[in-house]
Amino acid sequence: MPDDRDWMAKAFAEAETGFSEGGVPVGAALVAADGRLLATGRNRRVQQGDPIAHGEMDCLRQAGRQRSYRGMTLYTTLTPCMMCAGTIAQFGIRRVVIGENRTFPGNEDFLRGRGIEVVVLDDPPCQALMQRFQRERPEVWAEDIGE
Amino acid sequence: MPDDRDWMAKAFAEAETGFSEGGVPVGAALVAADGRLLATGRNRRVQQGDPIAHGEMDCLRQAGRQRSYRGMTLYTTLTPCMMCAGTIAQFGIRRVVIGENRTFPGNEDFLRGRGIEVVVLDDPPCQALMQRFQRERPEVWAEDIGE
Repeated sequence: MPDDRDWMAKAFAEAETGFSEGGVPVGAALVAADGRLLATGRNRRVQQGDPIAHGEMDCLRQAGRQRSYRGMTLYTTLTPCMMCAGTIAQFGIRRVVIGENRTFPGNEDFLRGRGIEVVVLDDPPCQALMQRFQRERPEVWAEDIGE
Repeated sequence: MPDDRDWMAKAFAEAETGFSEGGVPVGAALVAADGRLLATGRNRRVQQGDPIAHGEMDCLRQAGRQRSYRGMTLYTTLTPCMMCAGTIAQFGIRRVVIGENRTFPGNEDFLRGRGIEVVVLDDPPCQALMQRFQRERPEVWAEDIGE
């Protein structure tokens, strides 16, 4: 059965696709308790002109309506912003695996405060891609995080 | 210049449209500091099979990319869930006007804790429409609030 790093590779592939499209390189994957991949997604702010299409949000949209998120894990290459953290809490997702949290402060304390398990992989490729994006397209990054 | 109740009427019209489509009857409107209506939106979970399309989220999507949300007011017929409250905080929206908060607990304390002005109109039509929906379609409502 694939492990957390294997699923993160799926999310990272989405981030790379987003970068090649000129978008914000954050990817996500939603995995069921039995190890089924339900959906992947990526930030599409630039591609779709959609400010709510962060990687995690796009992934949840791709997964479509679910009766319950019980037992699911959400993988995201970058630690969640407050929109995505609020959504994780609202949807009842109980486990989040994060690629890296060095390029953005994120909201891990909020998630943990809601009893959600948070795992940070501290993944160098996730971090390197984000650093490259922040260096090359600072104006898009500032817009995406509401600064 | 229109006042809060006039803008709420725009949001409520969206909620009514959503109800007539078989959807969750929550509507929203985003208004600029100078009184320009930037967008309206409604919950489209049922209509689009999209779990993140709450009224506030759909409205922000319709408004498209914004450099800043400074001075804007978000109107919503129903007090925001944690996804929508997190999004409001993330986007830097500083004023939220709520139709009613009797049919759902919402997250007004979270918003106020972030320094966001929250106005509750306690509007009977907003409440009556929501109560009718919760009575007639309890399973869709439970799904929409992650229960």
